[in-house]
Amino acid sequence: MAVIGTGLIGTSVALAAAGQGVSVYLSDRSRAAARTAAALGAGRAEDPPEPVDLAVLAVPPSRIAEVLIAAQERGLARAYTDVASVKTGPERGVLARAPEPSRYVGGHPLAGRERSGPLAARAELFRGRPWALTPHRLTSRAALDRGLELAELCGAAPVVIRSREHDEVVALTSHVPHLLASVMAARLRDGPAGVPLLAGQGLRDVTRIAAGDPRLWSDILRSNAAAMAGVMKELRDDLARVAAALDVLAEEDASAGEDVFAEHHDAGHDQGVRTLEDLLARGVAGLAGLPRPGAGPPVAEAGLRILVPDRPGELARLLGAVAALGIAVDDIAVEAAEESGLRVRVPVPTADAERIGAKLGADGWDRAPAESAPAG
Amino acid sequence: MAVIGTGLIGTSVALAAAGQGVSVYLSDRSRAAARTAAALGAGRAEDPPEPVDLAVLAVPPSRIAEVLIAAQERGLARAYTDVASVKTGPERGVLARAPEPSRYVGGHPLAGRERSGPLAARAELFRGRPWALTPHRLTSRAALDRGLELAELCGAAPVVIRSREHDEVVALTSHVPHLLASVMAARLRDGPAGVPLLAGQGLRDVTRIAAGDPRLWSDILRSNAAAMAGVMKELRDDLARVAAALDVLAEEDASAGEDVFAEHHDAGHDQGVRTLEDLLARGVAGLAGLPRPGAGPPVAEAGLRILVPDRPGELARLLGAVAALGIAVDDIAVEAAEESGLRVRVPVPTADAERIGAKLGADGWDRAPAESAPAG
Repeated sequence: MAVIGTGLIGTSVALAAAGQGVSVYLSDRSRAAARTAAALGAGRAEDPPEPVDLAVLAVPPSRIAEVLIAAQERGLARAYTDVASVKTGPERGVLARAPEPSRYVGGHPLAGRERSGPLAARAELFRGRPWALTPHRLTSRAALDRGLELAELCGAAPVVIRSREHDEVVALTSHVPHLLASVMAARLRDGPAGVPLLAGQGLRDVTRIAAGDPRLWSDILRSNAAAMAGVMKELRDDLARVAAALDVLAEEDASAGEDVFAEHHDAGHDQGVRTLEDLLARGVAGLAGLPRPGAGPPVAEAGLRILVPDRPGELARLLGAVAALGIAVDDIAVEAAEESGLRVRVPVPTADAERIGAKLGADGWDRAPAESAPAG
Repeated sequence: MAVIGTGLIGTSVALAAAGQGVSVYLSDRSRAAARTAAALGAGRAEDPPEPVDLAVLAVPPSRIAEVLIAAQERGLARAYTDVASVKTGPERGVLARAPEPSRYVGGHPLAGRERSGPLAARAELFRGRPWALTPHRLTSRAALDRGLELAELCGAAPVVIRSREHDEVVALTSHVPHLLASVMAARLRDGPAGVPLLAGQGLRDVTRIAAGDPRLWSDILRSNAAAMAGVMKELRDDLARVAAALDVLAEEDASAGEDVFAEHHDAGHDQGVRTLEDLLARGVAGLAGLPRPGAGPPVAEAGLRILVPDRPGELARLLGAVAALGIAVDDIAVEAAEESGLRVRVPVPTADAERIGAKLGADGWDRAPAESAPAG
């Protein structure tokens, strides 16, 4: 196998392959980078003596086509793939100008780090991550198979998808989020003195990916500019709406001055609050579509209802008993507060409902009937 | 101690205090919520028989002043604080209308969870987190001391700061980031089918805080609308600039069509790329100001230079040796690739440079001279 470009991703792919006993030939515009990757155990910093099975192009999106064409002209490999996070541009270039477009399948492992360069590489970087493969109309079966083998060699989960669809998805899941993180992080540069004192995990999470290499990311973003445009527009429209709503509410607040009991019930205020709540609610709804990491497929669920006497600590005792049975305490809800105590709903897999109910009963917990209205 | 409002934060404060042996009296507009907190062991869901030392108001920002006034009118406590994430509005209301403003000190623990309500509460929620206290011009020494005691009781680090400065800082570190996370998450609602397949950790981090309760967050955001306005404006200006740059680059890309070797060197293109790179670089710079979690104060540092023969795996062996000495491998850099091998810079605390250098030397690593130019 040959790897062209020994930055974070290229060197990580090479380390994963070399770790599986594949002999890897490394090259990079920076001789020092290639030698560094080799010294890390990623392979040999030399040209292969004969054509290899697969060449992996680990260069920025805007350079894929030219690098592939040069490699094919010197007959480097029998199949070619890349790891760039934009796929339509490179594909268009390959289809237009490459000597053997059928030998190329686009690829994109969805993994990375904020640090770049070969020293940041990790053989396990791709383990369990999605690895997009974007065969085009001329891609040969053999080339696609080499791409699938590479993804599996790196412990990733291959996802075969059209290049255009891929670019639309990553514009939404990766490129626009990166831009937002950068725009937010840029605000911190000249922030008030108290920022480091009052910065929490939320801010760190929102801005984390903004630490990526600006040169590489500007190449990625401009290579996917067309697909980003639609998302950017909707996003800016929403921001303009909430900014306008906040301006109305800020003015009101000022004019209300010291009258803390002011009812604030004019139309502008109500409209502003509705705009804010609507956006925040749409955000919550949007998150529902994201897979929770480590979450398995949904299972049929029944609700056990337990009556908890409201003596201090009784509910904590139930949570402990439930956790001990391996049930996620996060999903438990208090349905109603009745004379006799709190009616608590414990969601359990339908299959285990009987067993768990019996166990809790044996521990002295009373089952409650399901009727009567939920608590406010 | 009395806690008014037994949601996530109020119940967590009560659990922390009760855990330290403080007797806590709980109340909430929802009787079920107060009883739930009591059943969790957070205290008693009843009114205190006599005035308490401290009453903690854990209600949304827009309700602090009215709740405080009502509590002071019935003589609930000798001192009052709150946990709202906006401070100037409540303070203005208290100064204007409260019977005893001197007994109130504003408070804001910088901790939270995406889940809300008493069942999400944790006694250790505040451990190691900043807890802002915002005494106003009339706040008594005694009231401030109660606030400081509460923060320490919860294991938090008190930060005394003016309410106006607090609100400007959290607009930047918490409220605008929340809005951005929501705007981004809202885009996912109607995204293409491939989104769940290709969503990675980056997207999850950028959008995580958008899961917060929309009702509570709309109250928080509108209560700090004035302080958010400036940040929102700069942010929208940046977004408009990069969106315009992306539009230019997208058009170009389309017009370049299949000419993969097109040099794209007209002014619009270069300006667009510069705009992108500038924003991304400012983002990286902004992050430099954020404290790394768990990072101690900066220490004077020296660079050990090691000559690594570029045989496969030699550099990996050095990284292992360095890690074994407790040095962060992330900061190691390859300075130059010379005939004799790679010149690697290993940053170490000046105080330990001698010892570590000797240790590496004893393990057979050659020290390299510092001169000669860094690798490209």
